[in-house]
Amino acid sequence: MRRCVEIAKKAIGCTSPNPMVGCVIVKDGVVVGEGFHPKAGQPHAEVFALRDAGDLAENATAYVSLEPCNHYGRTPPCTEALIRAKVKRVVVGMVDPNPIVASKVGVEEELCKKLNEAYIHRMLTGKPFVTLRYSLSVNGQLSHQLGEGAKVAGGYYSKLLQEYDGIIYSSTSITGKSVPTSQESQAKQPLHIIIATSPNSSVQLPHFSSDAASQVIVFAEKDVVTDPEMGIETVILEKLQLNAILDHCVQRGLCSVLIDLHGSFGDLKELLEDGVDNGLLQKVVMELLPFWDEGKETLTLKNLEKQVLKFEKSHPETSGESIVVFGYF
Amino acid sequence: MRRCVEIAKKAIGCTSPNPMVGCVIVKDGVVVGEGFHPKAGQPHAEVFALRDAGDLAENATAYVSLEPCNHYGRTPPCTEALIRAKVKRVVVGMVDPNPIVASKVGVEEELCKKLNEAYIHRMLTGKPFVTLRYSLSVNGQLSHQLGEGAKVAGGYYSKLLQEYDGIIYSSTSITGKSVPTSQESQAKQPLHIIIATSPNSSVQLPHFSSDAASQVIVFAEKDVVTDPEMGIETVILEKLQLNAILDHCVQRGLCSVLIDLHGSFGDLKELLEDGVDNGLLQKVVMELLPFWDEGKETLTLKNLEKQVLKFEKSHPETSGESIVVFGYF
Repeated sequence: MRRCVEIAKKAIGCTSPNPMVGCVIVKDGVVVGEGFHPKAGQPHAEVFALRDAGDLAENATAYVSLEPCNHYGRTPPCTEALIRAKVKRVVVGMVDPNPIVASKVGVEEELCKKLNEAYIHRMLTGKPFVTLRYSLSVNGQLSHQLGEGAKVAGGYYSKLLQEYDGIIYSSTSITGKSVPTSQESQAKQPLHIIIATSPNSSVQLPHFSSDAASQVIVFAEKDVVTDPEMGIETVILEKLQLNAILDHCVQRGLCSVLIDLHGSFGDLKELLEDGVDNGLLQKVVMELLPFWDEGKETLTLKNLEKQVLKFEKSHPETSGESIVVFGYF
Repeated sequence: MRRCVEIAKKAIGCTSPNPMVGCVIVKDGVVVGEGFHPKAGQPHAEVFALRDAGDLAENATAYVSLEPCNHYGRTPPCTEALIRAKVKRVVVGMVDPNPIVASKVGVEEELCKKLNEAYIHRMLTGKPFVTLRYSLSVNGQLSHQLGEGAKVAGGYYSKLLQEYDGIIYSSTSITGKSVPTSQESQAKQPLHIIIATSPNSSVQLPHFSSDAASQVIVFAEKDVVTDPEMGIETVILEKLQLNAILDHCVQRGLCSVLIDLHGSFGDLKELLEDGVDNGLLQKVVMELLPFWDEGKETLTLKNLEKQVLKFEKSHPETSGESIVVFGYF
């Protein structure tokens, strides 16, 4: 089952709105076929694994990280494919949270669930999975910096941008800076969701290429002016509330968004407090930077006092000289 | 050499002002003797290992985590004992920083150095090794709490109290609370160094038993009143400066002190800033608590801005639901 999760992760950032799934077919203790779901619209993991196994699938055991589908969607049901291939036994990592799929008990369920925490959350709540990212100095001051190596391929920040379908940040945090992009090879870049709380009507954005512009959306409370030639979509809301922004994300098929405090907190404070009040935050990713800092911004949010989090035990992980901590509300 | 460090650690908190040392004697690939230095005044690790090995020491290799002494102190030199036992070869983890001992190159030097970082620091600087401990909430607010399990046997806080020769804290932080004590079995308790900055002359201390009272010392700027029946030593300084307090610690034979912000920061802020200015802080131990907190105290110190730390890579470790991070200035 761990191997299923391992190969499922090859599609990290590519399968949304579908889950990541891996399938391993074992016969007489030997792996005879492997497959994973590469992206929405393409065949499921079981299909690739069965193709890989060929005739050897007969009387074999199929391990799947997510319960095989039993309904007709864009693809025929995988349960039928498994039966047709005469697989003797199917071991399931976790049951599908999708209400149109059935349910049994899982093997290595925690691991399989973590693999698709965003997909599961969206299925159960109808909202995207929301993670708040920020950096603190060792004495707890909010920092605008990212640690060395965070942005390069393999760095935790680059991997987050690969993993999340969308990234929310303040328009003030990118003025004159390069646009956050994942450096992982063949990473699908996230949708840039830029919050314009600027008091004047002109929002300065860095130059997005015409390709990239379709992956940018600006939310504002009044008619802001972005460079019209870039063709960037702008959505005007009566009030910049996280709920409304997330609804928009769901309509665009996003399962997960990262709220990135890289560069700005004050601008997004109200948005975050509204999000907290409505229980819209699921996770934090905190980078602990390897230096002491003077008192700058303090990261406090109304109504979050004494709110308990659960740290991920397999983490914290190190990133360059920093330590990265993952916690769940 | 790793085994040497492992057995040396059996004496954690007991050897000061001596270093912890482990010795393993190997003959034809087989361990024939092991020993460690249990406490000051008792024989060195090599002596115990040679006794353990008996005649088998002849032509064997001795591994020692610290260069064997070659001078006459309370014990005869270990180099002579090794020669007398006809040991063929001695492999040394690290050279002794003590100037009256000689010097060669080390094996697994980093590990052997970390084992005795306090001893080494005191030898090289004449000052105790100083570590600052504090707890932060996940949003970086200084907390007065310790995480669940920190104080019980095996908890990181209980282990720190075993490891350090002295613990410095503010008198205001213990009012009505129990006195910090290590719960490790047979732990030598640290000297309690209580800083009384209270504006009035009466300092409230919890009740120390007559046994424990000899392990307490109060530093104040004016003649404070503690319970005279307890017989607690009080030292009056013109100004409460870390340097003067550390000098006193050295006189009492302390190699290491833990400045514990458990309960108070404001009281010790000036003391710490003076310590920073004089380069007296070596290490931080930070507990990251698993909750978000409202804005309370912010941990900032003049002149420490952008001061770089090096996190210990083998750590961070988890403690209950918390994460504990170790960093060196």
